Amino acid sequence: MAIRYPGGRKYTPPEQPKKKPPKKDSSFSNRGKTLEDELDESNAYYLANNIAVIHKKPVPLQIVKVDYPSRSAAVIREAYFKTPSTTDYNGIYNGIHIDFDAKETGIATSFPLKNIHAHQLEHMKKVAGQGGIAFLIVKFTVSGRYFAVPLELVERAWDRMENGGRKSIPLAELEEEAVEFRAGYLPRLDYLKAVSEFGIS
Amino acid sequence: MAIRYPGGRKYTPPEQPKKKPPKKDSSFSNRGKTLEDELDESNAYYLANNIAVIHKKPVPLQIVKVDYPSRSAAVIREAYFKTPSTTDYNGIYNGIHIDFDAKETGIATSFPLKNIHAHQLEHMKKVAGQGGIAFLIVKFTVSGRYFAVPLELVERAWDRMENGGRKSIPLAELEEEAVEFRAGYLPRLDYLKAVSEFGIS
Repeated sequence: MAIRYPGGRKYTPPEQPKKKPPKKDSSFSNRGKTLEDELDESNAYYLANNIAVIHKKPVPLQIVKVDYPSRSAAVIREAYFKTPSTTDYNGIYNGIHIDFDAKETGIATSFPLKNIHAHQLEHMKKVAGQGGIAFLIVKFTVSGRYFAVPLELVERAWDRMENGGRKSIPLAELEEEAVEFRAGYLPRLDYLKAVSEFGIS
Repeated sequence: MAIRYPGGRKYTPPEQPKKKPPKKDSSFSNRGKTLEDELDESNAYYLANNIAVIHKKPVPLQIVKVDYPSRSAAVIREAYFKTPSTTDYNGIYNGIHIDFDAKETGIATSFPLKNIHAHQLEHMKKVAGQGGIAFLIVKFTVSGRYFAVPLELVERAWDRMENGGRKSIPLAELEEEAVEFRAGYLPRLDYLKAVSEFGIS
């Protein structure tokens, strides 16, 4: 964003001491980022540009013991991770309620359904039943491929598994029925564009 | 909910051993419940009856130290409460994105604006800008009165404060411009009904 003086003259910020060397090769600079980091960046971009308001929910914890040292902040001394009962991300995009979970897999040729909890799928169905859009973002870490996976495909694969079929969604099915997207710069992952192609591709 | 056999004959559950004495006076039985408890109950009712999917977000924590005792669950040994950057509740109701915060006050005649953080108000404005409904649920603990307060009223009071005016919303303004609702049984707080009256009352 260019900031201008009231007269319209462009504001030039004073030279800042350079703390970091400039990035070398953009294709390498983002290596090692987790999907969560990439989505956080993307959501920050969406928010700053009034495209969408989407946040990751905090990790649910069972707090058991809290200390209150005098004159300092409360310190949690014993707490445990709880299984989330919903998905990790939700928000609003262009009037539409958005609800999704993000999953990385190191498997190359399929997405294992054990990455999803039954109650997460139930939650997603409930959201879709109210008129929201529920989906998964799946990242294959080996190939660096990303897919926005509509709930319908997840549900179908889940039912197939419950009827004794395979316990994963094969890559070929994702290529056919999900929307693949690539990592970019701003936003890092334009996953909402992919989601808006559900049912079109 | 009455459960019936396929033939329509009413199902009568077998007599259960009574663990608790029966409730005496319904007007007293819910005393001492926090607004959070009441909203949790109401949201569970909305969810079970496919009316809405609304959840409280977990409390955001900064986790500093985690122990991994062998053969047991990870234990968080040092963590701190973080200021939430959004509101506490969101979800979807009838296709509409819902976003709100719940506040109790022990003050009898006004709602102090110090209960709201500036970044929470900013978040609510962003949500409204995307087409969601953002609001506050305010409970006056002394009188047991509840109000669903539209964002517009909160914004106006906030701007007034920033321009040197009073630092609270007087009860009379809430009576005039917010939607009051009463605690009931199922759901405990039918706040979505109140919200659907925004702009009508």
